Amino acid sequence: MDGFIGLYDCVSPLDFRYYGGNKRLVKEISPYFSENAKVRYQARVEAEYAKALAAKKVIPKKAAENIVSAALRVKPADVYREEERIRHDIKALVNCICANLGEKEKPYVHLGLTSYDVVDTANALRFKEGTEKIILPKLKKLEKALIKLALREKNTLQIGRTHGQFAEPITFGFAIAEFVERLGERIEAIEKAKDALAGKASGAVGASNALSLVCRDPEAVEAELMKRLGLKTARVSTQIAPREQMLDLEHAVVSCFGVIANLADDLRHLQRSEISEVAESFGKEQVGSSTMPQKRNPVTFENIKSLWKEFMPRTITLYMDQISEHQRDLTNSASARFYQETFVALAVAAEKMEGAVSSLKVDRAKMRENFEKAKGSLTAEPLYVLLAKHGHPNAHETARAIAAKAKERNSTVLAEAGKADALASFIAKFSKSEKRLLERPELYTGIAAKKTAKTCAYWKKKSRL
Amino acid sequence: MDGFIGLYDCVSPLDFRYYGGNKRLVKEISPYFSENAKVRYQARVEAEYAKALAAKKVIPKKAAENIVSAALRVKPADVYREEERIRHDIKALVNCICANLGEKEKPYVHLGLTSYDVVDTANALRFKEGTEKIILPKLKKLEKALIKLALREKNTLQIGRTHGQFAEPITFGFAIAEFVERLGERIEAIEKAKDALAGKASGAVGASNALSLVCRDPEAVEAELMKRLGLKTARVSTQIAPREQMLDLEHAVVSCFGVIANLADDLRHLQRSEISEVAESFGKEQVGSSTMPQKRNPVTFENIKSLWKEFMPRTITLYMDQISEHQRDLTNSASARFYQETFVALAVAAEKMEGAVSSLKVDRAKMRENFEKAKGSLTAEPLYVLLAKHGHPNAHETARAIAAKAKERNSTVLAEAGKADALASFIAKFSKSEKRLLERPELYTGIAAKKTAKTCAYWKKKSRL
Amino acid sequence: MDGFIGLYDCVSPLDFRYYGGNKRLVKEISPYFSENAKVRYQARVEAEYAKALAAKKVIPKKAAENIVSAALRVKPADVYREEERIRHDIKALVNCICANLGEKEKPYVHLGLTSYDVVDTANALRFKEGTEKIILPKLKKLEKALIKLALREKNTLQIGRTHGQFAEPITFGFAIAEFVERLGERIEAIEKAKDALAGKASGAVGASNALSLVCRDPEAVEAELMKRLGLKTARVSTQIAPREQMLDLEHAVVSCFGVIANLADDLRHLQRSEISEVAESFGKEQVGSSTMPQKRNPVTFENIKSLWKEFMPRTITLYMDQISEHQRDLTNSASARFYQETFVALAVAAEKMEGAVSSLKVDRAKMRENFEKAKGSLTAEPLYVLLAKHGHPNAHETARAIAAKAKERNSTVLAEAGKADALASFIAKFSKSEKRLLERPELYTGIAAKKTAKTCAYWKKKSRL
Amino acid sequence: MDGFIGLYDCVSPLDFRYYGGNKRLVKEISPYFSENAKVRYQARVEAEYAKALAAKKVIPKKAAENIVSAALRVKPADVYREEERIRHDIKALVNCICANLGEKEKPYVHLGLTSYDVVDTANALRFKEGTEKIILPKLKKLEKALIKLALREKNTLQIGRTHGQFAEPITFGFAIAEFVERLGERIEAIEKAKDALAGKASGAVGASNALSLVCRDPEAVEAELMKRLGLKTARVSTQIAPREQMLDLEHAVVSCFGVIANLADDLRHLQRSEISEVAESFGKEQVGSSTMPQKRNPVTFENIKSLWKEFMPRTITLYMDQISEHQRDLTNSASARFYQETFVALAVAAEKMEGAVSSLKVDRAKMRENFEKAKGSLTAEPLYVLLAKHGHPNAHETARAIAAKAKERNSTVLAEAGKADALASFIAKFSKSEKRLLERPELYTGIAAKKTAKTCAYWKKKSRL
Repeated sequence: MDGFIGLYDCVSPLDFRYYGGNKRLVKEISPYFSENAKVRYQARVEAEYAKALAAKKVIPKKAAENIVSAALRVKPADVYREEERIRHDIKALVNCICANLGEKEKPYVHLGLTSYDVVDTANALRFKEGTEKIILPKLKKLEKALIKLALREKNTLQIGRTHGQFAEPITFGFAIAEFVERLGERIEAIEKAKDALAGKASGAVGASNALSLVCRDPEAVEAELMKRLGLKTARVSTQIAPREQMLDLEHAVVSCFGVIANLADDLRHLQRSEISEVAESFGKEQVGSSTMPQKRNPVTFENIKSLWKEFMPRTITLYMDQISEHQRDLTNSASARFYQETFVALAVAAEKMEGAVSSLKVDRAKMRENFEKAKGSLTAEPLYVLLAKHGHPNAHETARAIAAKAKERNSTVLAEAGKADALASFIAKFSKSEKRLLERPELYTGIAAKKTAKTCAYWKKKSRL
Repeated sequence: MDGFIGLYDCVSPLDFRYYGGNKRLVKEISPYFSENAKVRYQARVEAEYAKALAAKKVIPKKAAENIVSAALRVKPADVYREEERIRHDIKALVNCICANLGEKEKPYVHLGLTSYDVVDTANALRFKEGTEKIILPKLKKLEKALIKLALREKNTLQIGRTHGQFAEPITFGFAIAEFVERLGERIEAIEKAKDALAGKASGAVGASNALSLVCRDPEAVEAELMKRLGLKTARVSTQIAPREQMLDLEHAVVSCFGVIANLADDLRHLQRSEISEVAESFGKEQVGSSTMPQKRNPVTFENIKSLWKEFMPRTITLYMDQISEHQRDLTNSASARFYQETFVALAVAAEKMEGAVSSLKVDRAKMRENFEKAKGSLTAEPLYVLLAKHGHPNAHETARAIAAKAKERNSTVLAEAGKADALASFIAKFSKSEKRLLERPELYTGIAAKKTAKTCAYWKKKSRL
Repeated sequence: MDGFIGLYDCVSPLDFRYYGGNKRLVKEISPYFSENAKVRYQARVEAEYAKALAAKKVIPKKAAENIVSAALRVKPADVYREEERIRHDIKALVNCICANLGEKEKPYVHLGLTSYDVVDTANALRFKEGTEKIILPKLKKLEKALIKLALREKNTLQIGRTHGQFAEPITFGFAIAEFVERLGERIEAIEKAKDALAGKASGAVGASNALSLVCRDPEAVEAELMKRLGLKTARVSTQIAPREQMLDLEHAVVSCFGVIANLADDLRHLQRSEISEVAESFGKEQVGSSTMPQKRNPVTFENIKSLWKEFMPRTITLYMDQISEHQRDLTNSASARFYQETFVALAVAAEKMEGAVSSLKVDRAKMRENFEKAKGSLTAEPLYVLLAKHGHPNAHETARAIAAKAKERNSTVLAEAGKADALASFIAKFSKSEKRLLERPELYTGIAAKKTAKTCAYWKKKSRL
Repeated sequence: MDGFIGLYDCVSPLDFRYYGGNKRLVKEISPYFSENAKVRYQARVEAEYAKALAAKKVIPKKAAENIVSAALRVKPADVYREEERIRHDIKALVNCICANLGEKEKPYVHLGLTSYDVVDTANALRFKEGTEKIILPKLKKLEKALIKLALREKNTLQIGRTHGQFAEPITFGFAIAEFVERLGERIEAIEKAKDALAGKASGAVGASNALSLVCRDPEAVEAELMKRLGLKTARVSTQIAPREQMLDLEHAVVSCFGVIANLADDLRHLQRSEISEVAESFGKEQVGSSTMPQKRNPVTFENIKSLWKEFMPRTITLYMDQISEHQRDLTNSASARFYQETFVALAVAAEKMEGAVSSLKVDRAKMRENFEKAKGSLTAEPLYVLLAKHGHPNAHETARAIAAKAKERNSTVLAEAGKADALASFIAKFSKSEKRLLERPELYTGIAAKKTAKTCAYWKKKSRL
């Protein structure tokens, strides 16, 4: 290791626990979201800029090639060491590149750029690529797992719950389809937002002052650089690119996190002892409590919700970072260094959720059992609707009184309705299938199964899963 | 007035000060964002739903017509009175509509709907229409004023500032063009977000259970309703529509507010006594301070920044409101009642900013004076770039040393460069126009004017201003 | 009414719904937290300042008396009208006071003060008094209701829940005692914070420049004013008093709101259909759903949680308002006008919670029933502890294996332990009362009842309830 | 290093840049705020608990001694390895301790505790001690530097600024005294908050169920443990201690950060090119910009402000963490693992600010120069006050008109007042020293110097600096 710190000297749980302690994750994620990655992306921008200058005949082709290979040899630790001396990170990087070059080529490095041309462009690029290579694949894997679960359980009867109270019947697959839809939609939002990230190479105050000295069409050089990197160009910039595109991506990422947190919350409530409709899988040697040996807790769902609580509020920082005085002040510099943390956290959470969903234990018998408890009262809705359909002028109030009586007498709505003489004439009008629904409320699931299938098919196709 | 409260008994500054005390604003804004508006939009949804049922032959056409006229006669105060009795707002609305109907039609009102079919659909509609009629026009008027200012000042020399320090020259129009771009882009973001708002009519748990009892194709009824209202339909919903679309709109609105707050900050700093490049217009009878009679403060800019501070953090509420348990819990009900406040605040802020920008006093002489102070040192950049261009292997460090010497000796970079023998051979290579730039740094504005014109033309066309 | 707005033209739900539509609440709360209140408190500060000047012989006593009566006659609407002309709120107030005075006394009004001497002092005073008269009494009433409930239910057996899973037994009173403690402690935090609010009368930049012109000891005048108002004096101020004291009060208020929101969450989960241990009382005419006549939802608990979601994030505004440039900028002016909203919301929430707690339906039978379900497995903990106590070297792992077996076989921990030969020698060492606990886990409630009684007694005394 | 990560593989800027790259800081801070520290503190709690059990005769003294030495030998990496197997962090710690013990002592480890007895108590302890050893000393060092600066500059004339506009004169020392006061006060707030942190040892649901099995008075054991650790005991707890105390400490820490951020903002604005009253010291080899060699930016002040933007919003997480269902859910576990980050950030910021304040360059000549620009208009206030004092019935309006005329004519208030015949009779009444103030406004600093001295003396004594 090149620094002064051991894994457990770290103060960020991402570094010592959620990401940094996991070899595989470090290998996957570090190329985009670590400090190493940042420096390497910046070197890559300097390299591609040299190529852009050469392409536009501003500097010799050979010089550009040498700069490229010099840039790719730079090591983050060296840049940090040089920064300690001169207290400027990008000038340190430039110096490190120049150290690998001859006198003739040195002047061409970074020529006409300001530091934030490099910083903002490199960040746009690594957040774009990191989103493509890490965030989206993990989210799509989760989406796939949800689709699988939803389709498998599309006919599994479950009592729907509103306000934590028994409401009307659905299927468990339909409950999951809600998240297939919302996650699918957020994946699209993230895709749009990462594609809108833009780089810039317009110099210290955005007017291409310096670059105008070395070439005739500075906008063409800027465009050439972005083309090479596969990035959009900021139409107008100051020393920095407008902050809204990064903020939009953060918003998409955090609101996607919110959908996953909602799913986590739903599943952990469904795992409550009294409900017990689902359960996280539990390892053979896994311990649930250091004092209660019987415990099996929904720790993954709790963990995901908790990570959301940690990272969601950080959007506030990005909203504040929109404000930068005049052609920029630096009060969004330190704060912007933290942006990748939320991405890493979402990657961790998505992976955990995918694991938990894929191995989720679904207890259909218990779902049926809970439904049975609800059955007696839930017919109040179909009763009210059918009474109204058949012309009862005060159907809701009537059904409400019957439901209250049923509750009081510990009876069922159907039974009480049967006893109400005033209703007989209306009930007589009910069709056979209408009556059947009242008697067998397990059939009263509306279009739950159909909508589940439709939604899953839609997102399967749309997300190419 | 129909309630218990006088204007100054209000506790919300929006109500007693920024919006409610202004007759014109109340007239403009109330139809979309007041409580009156909410109830009326809900009644409109009930009315259109009746028409949709009739269109699909579920209920008689005549009944639908009667329901429409009954719904439109409902007054918010009556709904509130009924709610006090039965403690349910939508059922209260339904009862008020029914009170205007005969026995035969009563059963058809709200038949197959759950309350949130009405609440969510009415909200989607009024936020969409309110954004179209109030928010966007005010923002576009501001955009237009900014374009006018930018074009007028596109050649006005100004010293660019980074870190609050003199940097390189721009034009004042170019500084404003940054906001033309960012505001234009946010206007588009708001437009996209409001168009994505979706209604729902899928019943208590989202599976169209009740509606399935009264018609064969509940999705067709839902689609018919949304078509009539000009709204998208939520592909999947529970008792409520997914929260992400409203959150996206809030995000667009708040991030647009951030751009305006940044502009406010820039202008108030440019009005600092020591800088004095711009000033808010100041009324003849206007008082700046109750104790310092000479004071003329940038109160509008301060006010806008301050309103942003009040409303930006409220996004947190919407991120939290993403989480609703199972087929919904009600913990996002009270909080959602506050959403329109941010929209009203942005309307107020945009209007104020438009007024301030349109009447902004620009002191070009002072801008020139400030530029003159910067002039001596800012040539360090072109000197460095030209030295590098002409092959100096260590141009930046050399220019840095010269700038330091100039500062120390209270001299100019150009003067010190002239004295440096080691540079003579390089400077000799400078072209005439290059030398001219060093001598007349007021020409060193890069493509500021050109980019200003281009940006303004782009947004003029794009926003159809 | 003196303004342009009807109740339902308001855009703030506080104004049109939670506070403003309720005559009694308006009468209670308006004297502290409305705009009327603010203006009247400011007039009161001007009046007391005149008295302070007179007390220190700076102005004639008679003049002070006339100023007092002139100030008390000022109406908020008049001040607003004058502000429209001169665009300065405090100068408008001063002008309105002067309008009631003769030429000789006019010069003495506000003499030596800056506007924020009045604004900050009046706010410190009204937030202090409003907290004393509105917030604290409502919180104490809630605390009293909680103590009553906790004591009544101190022996009511309930299964404790961690991670939403059955854990170990407690009593329902003990569960409530947690909130007696946390609410009691927050009440104290609010009391401390409101007592720390400080006023200031140190002029435009805090150095008493102007006041030094009219008297010898400006600090004595400032102290005299604060003594009269019963307020602390800010030891140092700029144009404004340090923001930390108001922020501390906001923090105390919001964190108290968090405790109440936690209680709301617990109760609404205990009301879940599958748990059903408590229920909100439900009015005879109350409607639970516009489509499901049987519904009885925990709407009060949901409402309280939702209000917390709306107001908690506003602390961010106060943290941002800490930053004011130099001797102050005005970017905390508009935002500070909203502070009272959180106080009003807490008053509303506390009142609602008190009502819900006082009329809470507690279903002891259902609590017992839920306990019975947990009983078989919860003995894993006492078994482990007793095994360890009696020297088993691997007690936790052993109990874990037994609990797993019990779960698998749908048996009980006790039964499985009985079958395990390896444990016989340890169990033989268990005392009679230890064995009894394993057989009758309903006795395994530790010191729940005792601690409940102790806690209630502590806070009853401490809060003088 | 014991893990899989290199310094620049970290994703948290605290770890790779602000703290982790600095050997000295790691040595100082790691013992309290790193993961190493957390595990060691937890082992310490297990050790002291054994001693407490022995002190209360629950377990043999010798066993306790062995547990102590076993606990102190545990290494964090080992605990992590064991956790990987059993997926429970505290049980992993217990197993690691047991691995160092004989069969007889094993059962006594952790006997009667739940995991969060250890987690919460260890956290209370390390946050308390870390605050005492790291946070407070750094803040006090900063306070000392501020006092020194304030006293040195207590007579340095500076123009006070409100709304960014020239207001009335102060001294630079007085401007700094504002921060002496506010920082001093926040130091006290932090001290109070850290002393209120409380531990707990009341078992899985807070009722001391398990502990009641092994001793007669579980509260006495709990009290004994806390006495040994120097911690308060939570009067009531569930599985966890009430969250409000940690939240109070976070609030104190973040609001202290806000004061430092305000100071940073003020100083960076005073360093603006046009103002130039102060400057950060600038290293000889330091580079200000990679393209503008002349740049010397207030990077430390900007950095501090930016760190505040990153960490302030995290309070939202702690407000959300107040809510934990029933006897606790785990959704505040992952989020709580991040709490120390804000403390580390404040330590870094305080240290940086202390360095910047101690080496701050104060340009008294420039302060005087800026004052001279303000001089002509600032006399409007003393003129108004003196006119009023001497009976002018309309002094403010009169002075306002004169100030407007002076501005218009580019003259001074004094000159214009001299020309106004209507004022002659009043000015004639002015005393000699009053006239002198109008002529020499540099004397019009009120009690700035006196208050500076008083404030510094107060905090020097109070903070024992």
